[in-house]
Amino acid sequence: MLSKAQNKYIRSLTQQKFRNEYKVFIAEGSKIAQEWLSATGHLQMIIATEEWAEQHKAIITKHAEAEFHIVNESELAAISTLHTPNQVMLIVPMPQRKEIPVLKEWYLALDNIQDPGNMGTIIRIADWFGINYIVCAPGSADVYNPKVVQSAMGGHLRVNIYEAPLASFLQSVSLPSFAAALDGENVYGMQRRDAGVLIIGNESKGISPDVMAMATKKITIPRRGGAESLNAGVSAGILCAMLLPC
Amino acid sequence: MLSKAQNKYIRSLTQQKFRNEYKVFIAEGSKIAQEWLSATGHLQMIIATEEWAEQHKAIITKHAEAEFHIVNESELAAISTLHTPNQVMLIVPMPQRKEIPVLKEWYLALDNIQDPGNMGTIIRIADWFGINYIVCAPGSADVYNPKVVQSAMGGHLRVNIYEAPLASFLQSVSLPSFAAALDGENVYGMQRRDAGVLIIGNESKGISPDVMAMATKKITIPRRGGAESLNAGVSAGILCAMLLPC
Repeated sequence: MLSKAQNKYIRSLTQQKFRNEYKVFIAEGSKIAQEWLSATGHLQMIIATEEWAEQHKAIITKHAEAEFHIVNESELAAISTLHTPNQVMLIVPMPQRKEIPVLKEWYLALDNIQDPGNMGTIIRIADWFGINYIVCAPGSADVYNPKVVQSAMGGHLRVNIYEAPLASFLQSVSLPSFAAALDGENVYGMQRRDAGVLIIGNESKGISPDVMAMATKKITIPRRGGAESLNAGVSAGILCAMLLPC
Repeated sequence: MLSKAQNKYIRSLTQQKFRNEYKVFIAEGSKIAQEWLSATGHLQMIIATEEWAEQHKAIITKHAEAEFHIVNESELAAISTLHTPNQVMLIVPMPQRKEIPVLKEWYLALDNIQDPGNMGTIIRIADWFGINYIVCAPGSADVYNPKVVQSAMGGHLRVNIYEAPLASFLQSVSLPSFAAALDGENVYGMQRRDAGVLIIGNESKGISPDVMAMATKKITIPRRGGAESLNAGVSAGILCAMLLPC
């Protein structure tokens, strides 16, 4: 059972303003909750139905640091951000980030991705391809939006996500950078490499001119049909599959 | 201005039952509407704000076959399926499909894709890669769901979409078929080919056993990181980029 104040607190976390103020975010759903509970990071709150808690006792008891609340389904539905009823919700502290480390590996740079579903899908792609760092331009979709967390499927646990102006990031990291565009070099002919920055632009406007000016090379997935463009997440996936080491 | 009956008719089209009964679907938004209006196919209804209609007079007048209604923004908002207010909505007759043609080219076979966003993304991928035929297993997300039409970005205009049991489709088409799986052959080493069937499975259950049994080969996008899986749309995009002709 949750108090009125707890209810209000949790519901406030659907808004970015309050997530940033309290430095926590929501992770919901059985599969995602299991990933977080199995990891070592601290949790602030575990809210679960009695049945779910019973079934997942072993991983819940590892998190003595977290407040633990048993709720019934209607209490959970009242605070849930999902359409379909769920069994568990976690309140997770945001990781503290300092400087973006300068390494010889792959980075994803996202220039103003707006759709939370795309943002989550791209975090999941980074997670699949073992990309440890994503840098988002200021003004991108909030990576702690519940929809982003949902579609990233636990990617937040393994991928380090920063916010920084991309032009200065590109300058500091001094790696070859590849800008996804409609008029670039055919990516099919290009060599795989161990490190670099893949830049993905906004869903409708693409990559902004100041970022494009800093990119080493524009690259393109060749089109054979009639579509004007590919979805940002799909493009990111294809380019990772083409450029990263086998 | 729309009559009460017209309003009711249009609103009923958010439900698959009525779309199938009337054999029409909704295409909304300026960009998508422009694609449909510029194409030659018949339209049943064009509903637009005065401003939008004025700006797009040239393509609207080409569709004398369609009922044409000027509405104000609140009338449009009342029938819209979108969150953000829009300027134009079309009611489009569903294409009549007979037998799936047996050709030496690429097909996409979708085994129970459930998420409308994924379905739309995959239609857009087919459209980008010039795949002319998609076959959906019965029970997949309805390809005329407004969210699917939205995320396919006009793909319905160029890609022919069928519904059929996949096992019998695979038998009839007699092309090599490639089943996306987590334990298949590494797609990076495989040769591109001019024709085949790419099979993409359900978001959580993958490809059903009877369809898998018919596939020539299981294929996999190698994983380098911690994610359990890739999004169905992203997988489809990567596999198309790897297997289709350059």
